[in-house]
Amino acid sequence: MKVFEQYESNVRSYCRNFPTVFNKAKNSIIYAGDREYIDFLAGAGALNYGHNNDYIKQQIIDYLNKDAIAHGLDFHTSAKEEFISKFQSSILNPKNLNYRLQFCGPTGTNAVEAALKLARKVKQKIGIFSFMGAFHGMTAGSLSITGNKELKAGINGLTNDVTFMPYPDGKMAKIDTLEYLELVLTDTHSGIEKPAAIIFETVQAEGGIIVAPIEWMQRLRDLCDRYNILLICDDIQVGCGRTGSFFSFERAKIVPDLVVLSKSISGYGLPMSLLLIKPELDIWKAGEHTGTFRGNQLAFVGATAALEYRENIELEKEVRLKEFFLKSFLNKKIQPIDEKIEIRGIGMIWGIDLSQFNDPNLAKNICDRCFDLGLIIERVGRNDTVIKILPPLNIEMSVLQKGCSIIQQALSDCLAKNTYRVSA
Amino acid sequence: MKVFEQYESNVRSYCRNFPTVFNKAKNSIIYAGDREYIDFLAGAGALNYGHNNDYIKQQIIDYLNKDAIAHGLDFHTSAKEEFISKFQSSILNPKNLNYRLQFCGPTGTNAVEAALKLARKVKQKIGIFSFMGAFHGMTAGSLSITGNKELKAGINGLTNDVTFMPYPDGKMAKIDTLEYLELVLTDTHSGIEKPAAIIFETVQAEGGIIVAPIEWMQRLRDLCDRYNILLICDDIQVGCGRTGSFFSFERAKIVPDLVVLSKSISGYGLPMSLLLIKPELDIWKAGEHTGTFRGNQLAFVGATAALEYRENIELEKEVRLKEFFLKSFLNKKIQPIDEKIEIRGIGMIWGIDLSQFNDPNLAKNICDRCFDLGLIIERVGRNDTVIKILPPLNIEMSVLQKGCSIIQQALSDCLAKNTYRVSA
Amino acid sequence: MKVFEQYESNVRSYCRNFPTVFNKAKNSIIYAGDREYIDFLAGAGALNYGHNNDYIKQQIIDYLNKDAIAHGLDFHTSAKEEFISKFQSSILNPKNLNYRLQFCGPTGTNAVEAALKLARKVKQKIGIFSFMGAFHGMTAGSLSITGNKELKAGINGLTNDVTFMPYPDGKMAKIDTLEYLELVLTDTHSGIEKPAAIIFETVQAEGGIIVAPIEWMQRLRDLCDRYNILLICDDIQVGCGRTGSFFSFERAKIVPDLVVLSKSISGYGLPMSLLLIKPELDIWKAGEHTGTFRGNQLAFVGATAALEYRENIELEKEVRLKEFFLKSFLNKKIQPIDEKIEIRGIGMIWGIDLSQFNDPNLAKNICDRCFDLGLIIERVGRNDTVIKILPPLNIEMSVLQKGCSIIQQALSDCLAKNTYRVSA
Amino acid sequence: MKVFEQYESNVRSYCRNFPTVFNKAKNSIIYAGDREYIDFLAGAGALNYGHNNDYIKQQIIDYLNKDAIAHGLDFHTSAKEEFISKFQSSILNPKNLNYRLQFCGPTGTNAVEAALKLARKVKQKIGIFSFMGAFHGMTAGSLSITGNKELKAGINGLTNDVTFMPYPDGKMAKIDTLEYLELVLTDTHSGIEKPAAIIFETVQAEGGIIVAPIEWMQRLRDLCDRYNILLICDDIQVGCGRTGSFFSFERAKIVPDLVVLSKSISGYGLPMSLLLIKPELDIWKAGEHTGTFRGNQLAFVGATAALEYRENIELEKEVRLKEFFLKSFLNKKIQPIDEKIEIRGIGMIWGIDLSQFNDPNLAKNICDRCFDLGLIIERVGRNDTVIKILPPLNIEMSVLQKGCSIIQQALSDCLAKNTYRVSA
Repeated sequence: MKVFEQYESNVRSYCRNFPTVFNKAKNSIIYAGDREYIDFLAGAGALNYGHNNDYIKQQIIDYLNKDAIAHGLDFHTSAKEEFISKFQSSILNPKNLNYRLQFCGPTGTNAVEAALKLARKVKQKIGIFSFMGAFHGMTAGSLSITGNKELKAGINGLTNDVTFMPYPDGKMAKIDTLEYLELVLTDTHSGIEKPAAIIFETVQAEGGIIVAPIEWMQRLRDLCDRYNILLICDDIQVGCGRTGSFFSFERAKIVPDLVVLSKSISGYGLPMSLLLIKPELDIWKAGEHTGTFRGNQLAFVGATAALEYRENIELEKEVRLKEFFLKSFLNKKIQPIDEKIEIRGIGMIWGIDLSQFNDPNLAKNICDRCFDLGLIIERVGRNDTVIKILPPLNIEMSVLQKGCSIIQQALSDCLAKNTYRVSA
Repeated sequence: MKVFEQYESNVRSYCRNFPTVFNKAKNSIIYAGDREYIDFLAGAGALNYGHNNDYIKQQIIDYLNKDAIAHGLDFHTSAKEEFISKFQSSILNPKNLNYRLQFCGPTGTNAVEAALKLARKVKQKIGIFSFMGAFHGMTAGSLSITGNKELKAGINGLTNDVTFMPYPDGKMAKIDTLEYLELVLTDTHSGIEKPAAIIFETVQAEGGIIVAPIEWMQRLRDLCDRYNILLICDDIQVGCGRTGSFFSFERAKIVPDLVVLSKSISGYGLPMSLLLIKPELDIWKAGEHTGTFRGNQLAFVGATAALEYRENIELEKEVRLKEFFLKSFLNKKIQPIDEKIEIRGIGMIWGIDLSQFNDPNLAKNICDRCFDLGLIIERVGRNDTVIKILPPLNIEMSVLQKGCSIIQQALSDCLAKNTYRVSA
Repeated sequence: MKVFEQYESNVRSYCRNFPTVFNKAKNSIIYAGDREYIDFLAGAGALNYGHNNDYIKQQIIDYLNKDAIAHGLDFHTSAKEEFISKFQSSILNPKNLNYRLQFCGPTGTNAVEAALKLARKVKQKIGIFSFMGAFHGMTAGSLSITGNKELKAGINGLTNDVTFMPYPDGKMAKIDTLEYLELVLTDTHSGIEKPAAIIFETVQAEGGIIVAPIEWMQRLRDLCDRYNILLICDDIQVGCGRTGSFFSFERAKIVPDLVVLSKSISGYGLPMSLLLIKPELDIWKAGEHTGTFRGNQLAFVGATAALEYRENIELEKEVRLKEFFLKSFLNKKIQPIDEKIEIRGIGMIWGIDLSQFNDPNLAKNICDRCFDLGLIIERVGRNDTVIKILPPLNIEMSVLQKGCSIIQQALSDCLAKNTYRVSA
Repeated sequence: MKVFEQYESNVRSYCRNFPTVFNKAKNSIIYAGDREYIDFLAGAGALNYGHNNDYIKQQIIDYLNKDAIAHGLDFHTSAKEEFISKFQSSILNPKNLNYRLQFCGPTGTNAVEAALKLARKVKQKIGIFSFMGAFHGMTAGSLSITGNKELKAGINGLTNDVTFMPYPDGKMAKIDTLEYLELVLTDTHSGIEKPAAIIFETVQAEGGIIVAPIEWMQRLRDLCDRYNILLICDDIQVGCGRTGSFFSFERAKIVPDLVVLSKSISGYGLPMSLLLIKPELDIWKAGEHTGTFRGNQLAFVGATAALEYRENIELEKEVRLKEFFLKSFLNKKIQPIDEKIEIRGIGMIWGIDLSQFNDPNLAKNICDRCFDLGLIIERVGRNDTVIKILPPLNIEMSVLQKGCSIIQQALSDCLAKNTYRVSA
């Protein structure tokens, strides 16, 4: 590992929490030489179908073998054609959704930037409303709508015309957040102009696994309709089946104007991102948002295969089953360990909130202990006090159970050592 | 192609100039069913080693076959370790360069954004100087330092604290651009603060193939030293051997403080980007700039293979040879066709500037004609009046010659049809 | 009046509501040829001591007659010396307040701009929190912290790093506004940085005569202390005795870090403004905020005389007496006219809120009717639906009563004509 | 003077250079008790008609005595009516100029802010071009277009969409500044959008007495016409006859779209400012730019009297005469003292540039010496190395000569003491 310490930038982060060199992975297991780890991190959401999914892999290798286009800017290619067709027939048509597809530079943040630009062009306004706790990416536009202040420290000049609104989380429980937002819009003296768009996540993952209520999302959609504001759903982390349905907003029966997809869309962890645009909003001129890798052909191949795979294994059903298990396990086995523990989640994204312990090290210690016990799991949320459970969606039930047991063990170990329960 | 017109966003661009569906590519040839096209576009610089380079391909397939890590965030992986080691031994060490490597979200623009952020953090200033004609990417930070005004139309709020300075191109021939820049810095009443960094390209590719003189680059480095300003070289398009040496700034014997690489670094057209940081500037805190795909493992594999490949075939020598051919051909066969034609370039990036014809369609017509004749080539520069010659570096000499002949033919056809020479 | 219509800019406003040419004024009466008008506008708060106050006038004329300095930049002059000494002995010392005096360009907005700049310099931060409904002036800095969106329409680029927070008015009744503000500060993911300063008015006059509760102001001061944020009180309109005490914040027993005074400070309606600075914050370098008229000597003479005058007539007692009358009259004679009428105010600034009638013309019609009946009075607040009662503080009780009767008459006339009560 | 040191903010500046308490002034002489000083500062341009001008004074006192409106917001008043009529008949009509008058908050900076706002509204663009060396005021909008970087230090966030262009001064001698400006406008990749307006001074006073050539101003006007950009002339310091004609731009026979006047417009040093607007640009809505003191009635009275006074004494002729004297004296008596001295100026604003001595204290020492010898004179320009000669326009010739002799004496004294000539 000396090579990393010596030559890789200090900015590296995950490797500090999981200090080993990984060399192999399959499905829900990652290997570091002899040791194996259950993966409850899933590439931060990029590996919903597991590592090196065989079905997808085969099609990628076949594609490579036949010297099909590996890089083609935004040329028309057969790989892209097949993906578009499959996405229409498998996802959009059955859901009666009508979107144009924009292939952005293959990162989530790039598609978020495209969404902001397009919204501003369409509405001829600069203002954007985002929500406290939001995470949308690290390039200047996306960072300007991201809540985490630490990420912005020392980098002024980013917050132009972005207004952060309260998200319906615990802290804001006393406030009807959308009533407040509407007051701000309608008050002629609020100082805050009507924005071009409101961007939201249905589940704030980095914010600490905060799940927006269905009614709140419906009211948000309604508010945007009444005030003629575009609604952008950033479905990067919790789209692609993470909450059960393919899009996370389906449970609220709403249709955003723009939808950002990335992470698991390519199915194999290959870089790809997508902006879905209601056809009437597709006012882009040719080449107004470009990027050398905006047509990542291998990712298209993976993405098409992934859409086939999820149909083949009836993935939505799988998720419902495992959601049931996770919800029960966390509420029955984990929460009762201490009254300061709060459980939140949906589908296959769950958080164990330890913030009420007021111990800056507790969550970290537990995750470290998990790693020792063979589980890779990360922390999110304010001050990184929420343990995030994010396994591949197709994880074998036995592996899921084993991973959960490790969490239970680690949590007990750490709380015991610190005698929290006694002191409580 | 109906599927693209119906379902893909209007933003698509290259496909409009090359209206066919491509399905296969090898080395310098792209295939659309039966037809084959010589590629003088090379993935906009992402395919310096040609399409589906066999040496690189084999290693990617081997890697996939053994289920090594396909997606691993910024974990320590064997693929990353090998790339870092190879990059040190093959590139940095022989050139006595000492840089830390930051793996950014796998797009050039993402690494540019990281460079801006880091420069601002280091210097605790917001200001950036960029150059007129510059192109650095399409996310908000990168776009703010990009010269093309059309790309920014209708999207205000991006130009905070960015100052555009004149680049040493034809238009500015009467001005000593660096003397002017220094006047602005030293004048206490110029209204323009000393910036954190100056970002530049050694060849403005999108700007119209404007090659910065060696002396200008040396004076720029010296100026940055004297005023304690960071110098960032965006080597996305003309790095990786395009101008001959691996880095394009080597010809000036200068060392930038930060260097941005992308496009051809992965060797196979797979998304990847890299920020090189002088060790003393590597003040990032862990996780201050992240991105789900920042460790694109397949790209690492390709990148390592590409570094081996370029050594194996002595690529620099190859480029020198073809540079000699291109320079001769363009100056002896193309320029003499009309005195309004201007030829500019270096290494294997050359431009045929047709702006003096004052005909908005001429360059487009020529490129369309090239396409009919079996050559893919694009236009850049102000009003897209410069034809950009950017073949893979390892193109076979005969194919290069054939491509050049097509240009000659197309140019003559179009000029003849419009009887420009008569009117001149 | 043709000369005004032909040659004065369309921006003129008050003259449209009071369409006559005024030529004389004394105490609380303004004359237009033969007609006389009771003045419940008082120069928008600049004439707390009435028009052409004889005591002040005499000293101004004496000063002019002896050819003392009429214009002296920020020279030391005897006029300035006398004002500073009197302000210390008459205002600051008795109240145990310790402030340095900065004489700004002689407009309120200029002193607000100075306050923002100084706060930013002291805290080395750019962010400012202001409140919805706030009015602080019309130059770029002051406008950026002013709530009225119509005033900012079409003039983007002003809202950098200004965050508008809810003010404790009726609309926000359900929200503990300071609890919300503190949540935003403490939430590490709220997206909103801790500001350099919070600027507030104890009574939002332009906002619609919204009186901040004493407890709210105390909590605001406490919050600023706990988070190390500067507290700026804009006392331009309701300082100088308008609410009873000289400073309007005295009733809350708090001490702001910076206080802005203007309007009535000069006593005679002459342009003057003042920034009060806690000594430890006076880090200005010489000349960092200048302005040709920052030492308006005639205004100093008037201001000194005004401080003497208010002592001579025991002005605070006067205000208490008239506050009692106004409060009684409005609540007993005006409010009962219709349940949709809301009365708000303190000291000698009161508002009759007619917004619940949802009639955009009602307040205007009433004010027009008042003018016909011999009373000058203006509207403020959201959509200009609040009639603002702002007489000179030293108005004779009989004139005050007469003016109030006119309001009562006009209100009844207009409501009767529109048969509001019947429809209610 | 203890009261100033103890209670007045550190921001005070002129008083530091002229450390005494002034108590009386008449015409071109200021008195501090027994001592008298010739005034070559003239209220930084606000006292073109001298101190306490008897003609003007009488009318102000008469106005006060008859209890005419002293403060009337933007009411129609007889004082305003008379000023507008006189300004039309005396200034605009004879010059065939057609402008609407906007009375702004009574400071130059306020009128500059109004000009920027109006230009942005008219053109629906935010961008403004200003010139290096420019000074336009200290409120946020005006400061953003002011060149002096020291004044902006530590106050980020002000430079949105302002581009500083080179002014035709010595430093820029090698550059055709307007050709450069036009290149920036026409280059589609310059990164700099066409602005709403270009604001300029015909003589950069604070910048160091840089006089724009007539041809340059004509080309600037022409350029604005060709590109449909508004031209704003800030005539605050050198308008009102300072350069000879009433407006300083008359010598170039150009007509700006917007003109800002302040300083000497009121004639008596009373705060007043004026924005002149071409009628077709007067798209203000009522009340869109306001300010409590925007109708400073005493200033109107003074301004009307001043216009009469300048006609009565044929002021323009006076200025021509004294310009001739000053030019001769400076070039024949001052410049020859040392070849490092540079003389610049026009009308009755002249600068002695000592920057080539590279002595940060020289200019200050000379001005201090002048003060000892009975002359008040200030420094301007980069690093305050230019001595600015700015006497009242109606200064008696003998007093002017005496003041000039003092400069000569002080200059010689200081150079002698430092033996510059020997070392040169």
